[in-house]
Amino acid sequence: MAGTGCASAGGANRGVFMRALVFDQTVRYQRNHADPEPQRAEALVRVRLAGICATDLELTRGYMGFTGVLGHEFVGTVEAGPKTWIGKRVVADINCVCGHCDMCQHGLSNHCRDRTVLGIQGRDGCFADFVAVPVRNLLEVPEAVSDEQAVFVEPLAAAMQVIKQCKIESRMRVVVLGSGRLGLLVAQVLRTTGCKLEVIGRNPDTLSFCEKKGIQSRFVGDVAPRADRDLVVECTGAPEGFNYATRLVRPRGMIVLKSTYAADAPLNLAAVVVNEITVLGSRCGPLPEAINALARRQVDVVSMVTKQFPLSRGAEAFEAAADPRHIKVLLKPEPGGGGNP
Amino acid sequence: MAGTGCASAGGANRGVFMRALVFDQTVRYQRNHADPEPQRAEALVRVRLAGICATDLELTRGYMGFTGVLGHEFVGTVEAGPKTWIGKRVVADINCVCGHCDMCQHGLSNHCRDRTVLGIQGRDGCFADFVAVPVRNLLEVPEAVSDEQAVFVEPLAAAMQVIKQCKIESRMRVVVLGSGRLGLLVAQVLRTTGCKLEVIGRNPDTLSFCEKKGIQSRFVGDVAPRADRDLVVECTGAPEGFNYATRLVRPRGMIVLKSTYAADAPLNLAAVVVNEITVLGSRCGPLPEAINALARRQVDVVSMVTKQFPLSRGAEAFEAAADPRHIKVLLKPEPGGGGNP
Repeated sequence: MAGTGCASAGGANRGVFMRALVFDQTVRYQRNHADPEPQRAEALVRVRLAGICATDLELTRGYMGFTGVLGHEFVGTVEAGPKTWIGKRVVADINCVCGHCDMCQHGLSNHCRDRTVLGIQGRDGCFADFVAVPVRNLLEVPEAVSDEQAVFVEPLAAAMQVIKQCKIESRMRVVVLGSGRLGLLVAQVLRTTGCKLEVIGRNPDTLSFCEKKGIQSRFVGDVAPRADRDLVVECTGAPEGFNYATRLVRPRGMIVLKSTYAADAPLNLAAVVVNEITVLGSRCGPLPEAINALARRQVDVVSMVTKQFPLSRGAEAFEAAADPRHIKVLLKPEPGGGGNP
Repeated sequence: MAGTGCASAGGANRGVFMRALVFDQTVRYQRNHADPEPQRAEALVRVRLAGICATDLELTRGYMGFTGVLGHEFVGTVEAGPKTWIGKRVVADINCVCGHCDMCQHGLSNHCRDRTVLGIQGRDGCFADFVAVPVRNLLEVPEAVSDEQAVFVEPLAAAMQVIKQCKIESRMRVVVLGSGRLGLLVAQVLRTTGCKLEVIGRNPDTLSFCEKKGIQSRFVGDVAPRADRDLVVECTGAPEGFNYATRLVRPRGMIVLKSTYAADAPLNLAAVVVNEITVLGSRCGPLPEAINALARRQVDVVSMVTKQFPLSRGAEAFEAAADPRHIKVLLKPEPGGGGNP
């Protein structure tokens, strides 16, 4: 490893090869994937638990043209890197940035021109025994936050980005469109603002999750859109969601877009023009605030986990994650990992 | 006519029938279209001059499902209505509103739930000898503004809406995408803000108009989009414009959409999400400010007129307006109109 002040722990279990879930046309489990080689200012993290999200599913449909080790939601333990980090339980910002470009220089490093993104763009991800991450991206997970909670830090931060970007007032009529894993996180975050909140979705199982949490929800078939909502957060993960959102939002209202998907879809933006709607794209969010919200139990993520698979059954896990009956599907590397045993 | 205090002038030329350009599957000139019957609180305006815009062309492609007398850009003389208005030279707000719905009550009457829109939605337009307009929609045209200028009040107001909705600062790098009639108006309005402005278009004729006005402009084929503009105002009138705009605008930048079009188009909003772009729909604008800008000669509209047709050659005028070699095409009812002579 390059860099000074670096050390290594748990090397006994670490070898030249590791187990990993790799995408290249198809999702394949590999027992002999090369261990990541951390570059200067990077740490090597042993993955404790990882989560599958809609972006992972879209990547396997061609989104971003990604190939490599999938996965960007994880909690792990630092095995090699600066001494102060060794043995620490961590999560990480997924955007690995240059620090020099115009975006980085203007405080918009999440939009770095030369970034790589964990398991999404130009960099292997976390569905593996190990993942290499820039040290500056690491955040320590406090004891109050369990592994099952910590694996939600990244998507919860993305959900919290909505309230960072939009000023939500209690008088506002807000719809979360889509009751999947991201929709349920966004709904729980929005509930903390005291706004007039409703989740509209098509899945009875996930809508019942809302009910349990005291969040008003309705089946999409029971809704007659009346263009009267101040804000619609589009979390369906499907291109049809946008057109529907334009029918829910009031003139001069706002649609926040969280969904990314691989394929073009037939859209007509005339409603955006005629009703002078603001459409706001929203991606990654503030990880420290997400950790804080989990530590304070402001958001319940643990009940969202409906299935956990070992890494070796990763392909099966991807199928489960694509099944709307599941909310969150986790992946856990088998103990003793490190390959080449 | 209903209402009190109403009078009529020039009735000698007014009959039961008038000449009009009507759309119903095709654009047809009718010599015997029924005169409009002004309702309570409406005035009857004799059209002096009218303009064809992209929305008119889209209406003839099925946009809004409109049928009836086309046209919403005009200057005219009040022939019947409240005494104080008779003989006045006027333009008019095209949105005819209820005054009672939630939008009207909240100061958003342009978005009235029950509105009709002149020549666009549920109400005959101005490509005719006469048009009926709510009195509250009328604005008197000052002497300093000629008919040729006044016919631009409505589209210029729509262009000015961009600077009403967005705070434009002089350091901002702004692109107007599309050098058609609306793009050239938006560009002239944006120039008044002192921002770093460039027009990108595909038409050498209209780009040379920019050059004459001292506005930087480039042929689209000469541009390599680098996602570095703070604001892109999309005025192409074509669905492809949106995708191109997402390649011009910087992360966290803004796209203002002015184009409406009839057909769905294959779009992918992933770039909006990933780059956290704000997309802002923009429609009608402040008519009094447009009149003021014309009176002060802040915007040159007269040189934008490349062709004028009599109403009887309306179908030909529509063909000319669809030809990119033309910027603005005007329609002028023949003298002595009023049909049934």
